[in-house]
Amino acid sequence: MPPLVDHHCHGLLREVPTDVGPFARWLSESDAPPAPGTSYFDSALGLAVRRWCPPALGLPAYAPPEAYLDARRALGAAEAERLLLRAAGIGALLVDDGPLPGAPRTGAELAGAFGAPAFRVARLEPLAEAAADAAGRGTDAFLAGVAERIAGAAAGSVAFKSVAAYRHGLNLEPAAPSRAELWTAAERWLRTRPPGGRLADPVLLRHLLWSAVGTGLPLQLHTGFGDTDLRLHRADPALLTDFVRAVAPTGCPLVLLHCYPYHRQAAHLAAVHPHVYADLGLTLSHVGGRAPAVLAEALELAPFGKLLFSTDAYGLPELYLVGARQFRWALAEALRGPGWPRGDADRAAALLAAGNARRLYDLPERAQR
Amino acid sequence: MPPLVDHHCHGLLREVPTDVGPFARWLSESDAPPAPGTSYFDSALGLAVRRWCPPALGLPAYAPPEAYLDARRALGAAEAERLLLRAAGIGALLVDDGPLPGAPRTGAELAGAFGAPAFRVARLEPLAEAAADAAGRGTDAFLAGVAERIAGAAAGSVAFKSVAAYRHGLNLEPAAPSRAELWTAAERWLRTRPPGGRLADPVLLRHLLWSAVGTGLPLQLHTGFGDTDLRLHRADPALLTDFVRAVAPTGCPLVLLHCYPYHRQAAHLAAVHPHVYADLGLTLSHVGGRAPAVLAEALELAPFGKLLFSTDAYGLPELYLVGARQFRWALAEALRGPGWPRGDADRAAALLAAGNARRLYDLPERAQR
Amino acid sequence: MPPLVDHHCHGLLREVPTDVGPFARWLSESDAPPAPGTSYFDSALGLAVRRWCPPALGLPAYAPPEAYLDARRALGAAEAERLLLRAAGIGALLVDDGPLPGAPRTGAELAGAFGAPAFRVARLEPLAEAAADAAGRGTDAFLAGVAERIAGAAAGSVAFKSVAAYRHGLNLEPAAPSRAELWTAAERWLRTRPPGGRLADPVLLRHLLWSAVGTGLPLQLHTGFGDTDLRLHRADPALLTDFVRAVAPTGCPLVLLHCYPYHRQAAHLAAVHPHVYADLGLTLSHVGGRAPAVLAEALELAPFGKLLFSTDAYGLPELYLVGARQFRWALAEALRGPGWPRGDADRAAALLAAGNARRLYDLPERAQR
Repeated sequence: MPPLVDHHCHGLLREVPTDVGPFARWLSESDAPPAPGTSYFDSALGLAVRRWCPPALGLPAYAPPEAYLDARRALGAAEAERLLLRAAGIGALLVDDGPLPGAPRTGAELAGAFGAPAFRVARLEPLAEAAADAAGRGTDAFLAGVAERIAGAAAGSVAFKSVAAYRHGLNLEPAAPSRAELWTAAERWLRTRPPGGRLADPVLLRHLLWSAVGTGLPLQLHTGFGDTDLRLHRADPALLTDFVRAVAPTGCPLVLLHCYPYHRQAAHLAAVHPHVYADLGLTLSHVGGRAPAVLAEALELAPFGKLLFSTDAYGLPELYLVGARQFRWALAEALRGPGWPRGDADRAAALLAAGNARRLYDLPERAQR
Repeated sequence: MPPLVDHHCHGLLREVPTDVGPFARWLSESDAPPAPGTSYFDSALGLAVRRWCPPALGLPAYAPPEAYLDARRALGAAEAERLLLRAAGIGALLVDDGPLPGAPRTGAELAGAFGAPAFRVARLEPLAEAAADAAGRGTDAFLAGVAERIAGAAAGSVAFKSVAAYRHGLNLEPAAPSRAELWTAAERWLRTRPPGGRLADPVLLRHLLWSAVGTGLPLQLHTGFGDTDLRLHRADPALLTDFVRAVAPTGCPLVLLHCYPYHRQAAHLAAVHPHVYADLGLTLSHVGGRAPAVLAEALELAPFGKLLFSTDAYGLPELYLVGARQFRWALAEALRGPGWPRGDADRAAALLAAGNARRLYDLPERAQR
Repeated sequence: MPPLVDHHCHGLLREVPTDVGPFARWLSESDAPPAPGTSYFDSALGLAVRRWCPPALGLPAYAPPEAYLDARRALGAAEAERLLLRAAGIGALLVDDGPLPGAPRTGAELAGAFGAPAFRVARLEPLAEAAADAAGRGTDAFLAGVAERIAGAAAGSVAFKSVAAYRHGLNLEPAAPSRAELWTAAERWLRTRPPGGRLADPVLLRHLLWSAVGTGLPLQLHTGFGDTDLRLHRADPALLTDFVRAVAPTGCPLVLLHCYPYHRQAAHLAAVHPHVYADLGLTLSHVGGRAPAVLAEALELAPFGKLLFSTDAYGLPELYLVGARQFRWALAEALRGPGWPRGDADRAAALLAAGNARRLYDLPERAQR
């Protein structure tokens, strides 16, 4: 398998906590404490971290969290990070530039840490929020600012990304809003928005989606599971069907991220719509030993030219390693089953691991090594 | 296992393309080209075709598409078709008479090709469209024409079939429309229908469903995945629950077709409602090596007397063979697992393969051989 | 594995039918006869009963139903029950006190049969129906009666249970109803309720949920599959997301029961919301040989401190034994897979089997033996 192209991840923490409790908090999508008497290591993801990370630092697989964190401290944060990231075998990264607590390393800093090129994925909603911060209550200025920011982001990015699934749900009207609808919604939002308020208006979210589509860059959409902010049933990618159809004539690629537990629905969209792609993202990390089964479910309908690899990792270097190892392991297992001749399995693996992403995002030669 | 009863399929192409590109287009539910750099053979269904079809023509399993199509050309279309269909082991077919591009062979022609009896399944929506073509704007004539065509079809068919899931979605009001509702909807549709326009009005779709129920013949309903016309989440068979309940007193059997990825929901309906049946149809072909797992999922709740076999094949003789082989293989695998004593497995296999369909559709003796 | 804590079950029949037909009727959630030519033993649950129960009565596994029932009759009902329940290895039971046909044994009678402590789970809807029976058309008296009954039940129970999923669906407004809303709804219901009429009004159902939350006791909620009364898609636990969030500040634990086929959705809620728990209940019995796979699906996202064991058994002693054996077997299989070191598997098994329930319901020492 070639070096992986991680087509969707986030930034690396500047300082990783090395006490079990604070460290384990990065292993959950929850912002709350674990069940009494347990820790966030008591999950499929916790076991996956213990499976893949201790060996990268010279410990046996499944070393207890305390022993692992002792070893990590002894090595020092920089050396531990180097060992973990090197073991991940990631040859290129596409990094969502959405804001994260702690202002983690992205861009050139992240590329340096990985020794691999990093490309920007521009998060849409913060662009609009920044335009609103700058425009105050001026609707004209706001809409011009959005257009300008999107054009600017397009010039320096390989894709856009939307979290409309979080902000409203994917049950959006499919068409671009009319000029009048847009104006009314923008005016209302600017008038009622508290300082720093997040964009959740469905009309404005649709405007962002269609503005991104207008640039022709691939548009990544969060679908499926996430943190407590999410209403899961409103993140079913099947809800995007009418939008997918409306976008079809433009040829703009749509990339469904994560998708679980609606990954079969996502695979169906990828199978019948030529411009739709999908990944499983953090799913393969979170489901631990079940990763081969979940990947196999996605491959039931997804054509091999349409499924991508990503870690969706953020914060801990451990999560990039786990994402990469889980994917490699799950893929090898899923393609070993009945019905998979060796040559075809190898070809499909190369497409999923890197080829599909290189083609879809038109990654420059320097990223290919 | 006895010869299979394929309780839902379509017609056979008169001329099968033998170049890879045009041939492969029949392997997708999409009407669009595959992802750049890939073909529709790059899918679980593509691998399944390569697994089962080359051996029927004397080549090794997984022969490359080009070699397979060369061998097919060398044999000639008629001989290739004969070999493929004979290998399928299908002892009776129920054929959806809905229109397909290329006016494929159905009825006696299809029965001849298979050497097995073929029974008609009357598609509802085209009956109404033909009645509208004949009636022009006359509401009375239209409704009388529908009634007449349905009565006529009932006389020569073993079941009705609806694609309301495509035309509107399964989120229909459960009850038969009132006479006034029906009139208003018919009048409106006839007034606004373009020539040849398809029926998508929910009131008229309900009228067709209830007209079919009135005949007492089993009513097949498309549910689950399909082509780009479909909104997948509106094809969840669970949406039919109130309709299922409303139909219960009539005793008319309802047969949920395909169902994936909502086959567990369909199995639940089949488990608790005595008049509900289900199949997996084209699913087992499309999911390739995962067919045993998907069939096992359906068998979690579905009573063994309620699940049926179908290929949902159309066009290529290869698709009938793949449907039949995938089903036989998946069933053998699914019933080999823990919890399946041999005698019970054999009995359940015989029910799913043929017995349930023979009982449900009351197939005449001559089909039993 | 320690003795199991069955955190959700129902009462035991006083007289078990020993003819195949009447006995088999207890193996279905349906109230209708099985498909012609089949019996309710022709299902995954039927096979599971034949797998686990004959050995408890001295017969080989998979003995035919007739032979099993002959042996059962020969032993006598009391001795058969004793053997079956002893084999279940259940160390404590939480018993839903909702009404069941035949007024089965609950409470002390059930505890005696099992030789294990039994705790009460108070069903909410019958409390309101009893209050309505007592109050006639007096809204004040009704609401006071509800409050009094809930307070009384809280004093003698370890949890509440709601079947709002059956009565209306889980698509309820999340907030507690206002006083005015509540009054209007209560008045309307009392005015239109037929004698003995069931509560299905969404405002009153919400009032019951929030009244239970107010007691601080864990609140069990039916989700997922059930009998013919259920609209499955309205029992998706993801529909509870806004309610889950609204309850969060109170700290009241919410326990999602059964969940299938939405158990991945339930596991996600349990993963990100600290006060949410889940079980699979009767699912593991009903899916037979697939129980390890279904449990593994739930464990993809569910933290090991959040998933509980229950049989959801009612009526036949066989169903308690099957529930317990299926759980033990499925758990052992699911935790044997890749990614599960032995020590962690043992610890997780102990949590799921008993530890989580003991902690969540704060079960008294005497139940611990």
